[in-house]
Amino acid sequence: MKLSRYLPILDWGRRYTGQTLVSDLNAALIVTIMLIPQSLAYAMLAGLPPQVGLYASILPLIVYALFGTSRQLAVGPVAILSLMTAAAASRIAAPGSPAYVEAALVLALLSGAILLVMGLLRMGFLANFLSHPVVSGFITASGLIIAASQLKHILGVQAEGHNLFSQLFSLARDLPRTNIPTLVIGLASLAFLAWARSGLKPLLRSLGVPETPATLVSRAGPVFAVIASIVAVTALGLADRGVRILGDVPRDLPALGIPRFDADVWAQLAGSAALIALIGFVESVSVGRTLAAKKRQRIDANQELVALGAASLSSGLSSGYPVTGGLARSAVNLDAGAETPAAGAFTAIGIALATLFLTPFLYNLPQAVLAATIIIAVLSLVNLKEVVKVWRFSKTDFAAMGGTITVTLSFGVEWGITTGVVLSLFLHLYNTSRPHFAIVGQVPGSQHFRNVNRHPVVVPDAILTIRVDESLYFASANFLEETAAQILANRPDLKHLILMCPAVNRIDASGLESLEAINRRLDDAGAKLHLSEVKGPVMDALKRSHFPAELTGKVYLHQFEAIRDLDPDCAAAALSGSAPTTEPGATPCPSQRLAGMAAVWK
Amino acid sequence: MKLSRYLPILDWGRRYTGQTLVSDLNAALIVTIMLIPQSLAYAMLAGLPPQVGLYASILPLIVYALFGTSRQLAVGPVAILSLMTAAAASRIAAPGSPAYVEAALVLALLSGAILLVMGLLRMGFLANFLSHPVVSGFITASGLIIAASQLKHILGVQAEGHNLFSQLFSLARDLPRTNIPTLVIGLASLAFLAWARSGLKPLLRSLGVPETPATLVSRAGPVFAVIASIVAVTALGLADRGVRILGDVPRDLPALGIPRFDADVWAQLAGSAALIALIGFVESVSVGRTLAAKKRQRIDANQELVALGAASLSSGLSSGYPVTGGLARSAVNLDAGAETPAAGAFTAIGIALATLFLTPFLYNLPQAVLAATIIIAVLSLVNLKEVVKVWRFSKTDFAAMGGTITVTLSFGVEWGITTGVVLSLFLHLYNTSRPHFAIVGQVPGSQHFRNVNRHPVVVPDAILTIRVDESLYFASANFLEETAAQILANRPDLKHLILMCPAVNRIDASGLESLEAINRRLDDAGAKLHLSEVKGPVMDALKRSHFPAELTGKVYLHQFEAIRDLDPDCAAAALSGSAPTTEPGATPCPSQRLAGMAAVWK
Repeated sequence: MKLSRYLPILDWGRRYTGQTLVSDLNAALIVTIMLIPQSLAYAMLAGLPPQVGLYASILPLIVYALFGTSRQLAVGPVAILSLMTAAAASRIAAPGSPAYVEAALVLALLSGAILLVMGLLRMGFLANFLSHPVVSGFITASGLIIAASQLKHILGVQAEGHNLFSQLFSLARDLPRTNIPTLVIGLASLAFLAWARSGLKPLLRSLGVPETPATLVSRAGPVFAVIASIVAVTALGLADRGVRILGDVPRDLPALGIPRFDADVWAQLAGSAALIALIGFVESVSVGRTLAAKKRQRIDANQELVALGAASLSSGLSSGYPVTGGLARSAVNLDAGAETPAAGAFTAIGIALATLFLTPFLYNLPQAVLAATIIIAVLSLVNLKEVVKVWRFSKTDFAAMGGTITVTLSFGVEWGITTGVVLSLFLHLYNTSRPHFAIVGQVPGSQHFRNVNRHPVVVPDAILTIRVDESLYFASANFLEETAAQILANRPDLKHLILMCPAVNRIDASGLESLEAINRRLDDAGAKLHLSEVKGPVMDALKRSHFPAELTGKVYLHQFEAIRDLDPDCAAAALSGSAPTTEPGATPCPSQRLAGMAAVWK
Repeated sequence: MKLSRYLPILDWGRRYTGQTLVSDLNAALIVTIMLIPQSLAYAMLAGLPPQVGLYASILPLIVYALFGTSRQLAVGPVAILSLMTAAAASRIAAPGSPAYVEAALVLALLSGAILLVMGLLRMGFLANFLSHPVVSGFITASGLIIAASQLKHILGVQAEGHNLFSQLFSLARDLPRTNIPTLVIGLASLAFLAWARSGLKPLLRSLGVPETPATLVSRAGPVFAVIASIVAVTALGLADRGVRILGDVPRDLPALGIPRFDADVWAQLAGSAALIALIGFVESVSVGRTLAAKKRQRIDANQELVALGAASLSSGLSSGYPVTGGLARSAVNLDAGAETPAAGAFTAIGIALATLFLTPFLYNLPQAVLAATIIIAVLSLVNLKEVVKVWRFSKTDFAAMGGTITVTLSFGVEWGITTGVVLSLFLHLYNTSRPHFAIVGQVPGSQHFRNVNRHPVVVPDAILTIRVDESLYFASANFLEETAAQILANRPDLKHLILMCPAVNRIDASGLESLEAINRRLDDAGAKLHLSEVKGPVMDALKRSHFPAELTGKVYLHQFEAIRDLDPDCAAAALSGSAPTTEPGATPCPSQRLAGMAAVWK
């Protein structure tokens, strides 16, 4: 029971049948075909030799099959992590150099170790600090950077640049040196892949091909582009006319081993590895959750940390680079009928066989085709609709998203995601530190209490009731204290202040301290503090302190009870509907700030 | 109107009368007498020449009188900021050296500028991120460090050390070199000051002295110790027997000027200056609020930032060091009858006169007396009761407090307060990222819905209601998504999931995204999502998105309405009391985690 939680293979492995095997083998074949050009392309994006992409698609898949909780998630190299690997490794060495390849290995090892430790300590909640607008903005900006970085392969030039703008500038400068055969191949691939994505499936369906095969064939667009371009380059001798090709890929299985330990380099890469771990985890878990829900299954986020950590670690030990679960290939895996993680293990065998026997046929594969594959893949990551949606929904969230996009485009992926996390935490705390408070009064003829700004209500003399719409923790506690001080200063006649707490979900020591300070200061000024409608857990917490003993007033279960106790005549008159009410909206008092409020409510 | 907000003197100055003048002059005289030994002592604590303490008590007081919103707050050098100044400046140069004095000036200038900018940008809320247990733990730990650092002056030895433990160790090593006359003076001062604090006032009262004078005289204990020790040292020639004395203090008013700009040094001090600014502000505002409440006045936190910033800035321009409002002297100011900030300005004149004419008489003042003054003053900052109280109240808060104390004692003030802030933010986010959820059912014979774990309630088949006790923001959104996935995986029969939202105070884009994902996944699995009791502001936010259009179910004003609509028979049976209820507590389901819950609620 316990062991199968950490080794889910014990669970699904027991129920494995011949029928499941056929489904998994079928899915593995299709995913393998799709994964070969993808692995080569993402290795190129990461600035690594092509075989590294293949190596990252072998052992990690087997390891994930052992530990993963998602039945259909397909792990391997993905676009964003490839970009992040390139950003981190190029700080250490020149792309393609042995030190650079080793840096990528170290990144895989460290990010894997970080994920594994987070999983064992059940710290999956750390990923919660990446808010959705930040992740979404980061992915959109990364997609744009990746697409821009591949344009040089389409044009056949040598452009460089560390951010979007310098890349585009360098590209414009090199434009006159464009290699025409490369450009033709690149544009043709782009056009074909774009069409395959949207036009191929309807065509196949109209030709009578059933739904699932049509979907799978349309997803295999890159494979057709690869084959066609190899044939074209070989037949026309385009490699001699300046078309850069893949060239020799070593026909070896990955070497196992631990990268050389260099404390300086490892320390320099540790921060980047943590960001890669976090982004990879968030990406993979969101894919995994979506897939699982379709089959009414679920994934265990903490066990996913372990599984993804072990996968990346194994990638670092087998000449690969950081990996995680990818959306496109997982969707294909699901569509192709994968039923268990064994499909991933079979895919690994497929990639291993391809590495051994297929690479010679890929010698003439133009880099422009791989670049086109990447561009078409990442453009689906660029989600401008989401930007508009967030802008409409919340300006605070948009600020975090806009900051992430701007910094990612201008200063690179690592600054971008860090800015996003810090900005979203800061904005959240800023907002909760200025919580919504409302002064409430009794609705005539009822025992209900409503915001004086929205409803005509009865407010007794010398009693003020504030409804606090936020937990009382350190960031909001000061605001409450400030508000109480404001009221006290402006209402010399005040005898009773009631805090109505139905939306106070928790209270911490700072909140308690503020309540005590308010109680003490009201007492000094000759007024009493009362609480009403305090939730069970909050009351339990208060009872662990001296506050109930020090409270000058009482704790009432219901707000009406409080008013009935403190001003029976007014409560009765309001209940019978005979008390005069205040006019809602007749006051300039914004319930958000309460400024000048007490002057009005005298 | 507007101008007097930024220059409160325009407000109280207009109503200034002869009577107010008499009160303020009286208070100023008493505070001046108290402030002279304090200023000298705190300068010694900061490792600065004695006159720097006096200088920091002149111009800053006048500036605060112009801009401050507290009527009784007395600004000047304080213990904690002196310790923080010493910690920061000793990284730049040796204590007492010209570069060290200049570093203190730069700290005053920078921390003043930071406060001023925060005030003008109305960023007082930043201080909210210092939770009460962190500040309280920090002050307690700092008090212990300060007291330990002064023991060498009591013993007359040369102990050194950067943290509490190395200080005590070094002290123990130097113990054999103790100077006996110094020790006698030191212990006598300590004993007298301790007695003056607790025993002098009751004695005076029993001799028929009225309350206020008795309080003020007992607060002036240090002045008696100063006079008595000067007489003793002079009469017995103790300076020649190894008793270290104050010596010559320049009889000049402070020189005005800007410290030399050295980018490296300023950059090194910027972080420390920010911490000094923050701690000084928090300390001063809490004192100011307490004083204001006693007179039913209030202070404006953002204007206080401006006033304290201008005061520290002026200290940096007039040969001083960082200042803020102090508790003890402000209490004396209030007790002595100060009615307006003019009392502070008069105190400044008093200190200036003392600097010019009194310092020769202080030549023979033993440092041991100043050290005893500091020790007695800071021991009141050490609040172990508060530590016990926080321990009892909340283990989370205690973790933040304990971390702050441990790190402050072991690694110094700057690491301590930084650790505290990071720890409290982290723990807060950790807690809110695992919010309280409860599965609720209908209380038989009513329209109320309660936690299934606490009450016997009616739960309809194929419908599950979750009450969310937290705002839906990025940190809690994932937990909701996870919970929904868990329910979906364990309840294949589920047709309706209702989220009951009376305690959801806000929703951000991540929360929205989670709701959309839950809605989509339930839809894929053939179930519907409903909301009930959504608050006005949250509903307003949702209406700015496509969510209401995409929602597969409905939004109900009341939870009972939802059940009546989805399962009329069950709702009616529960209302009439004829439906079977669940057994509360019969289940191992912790509402905090909901693990395995769905299996139980099948």
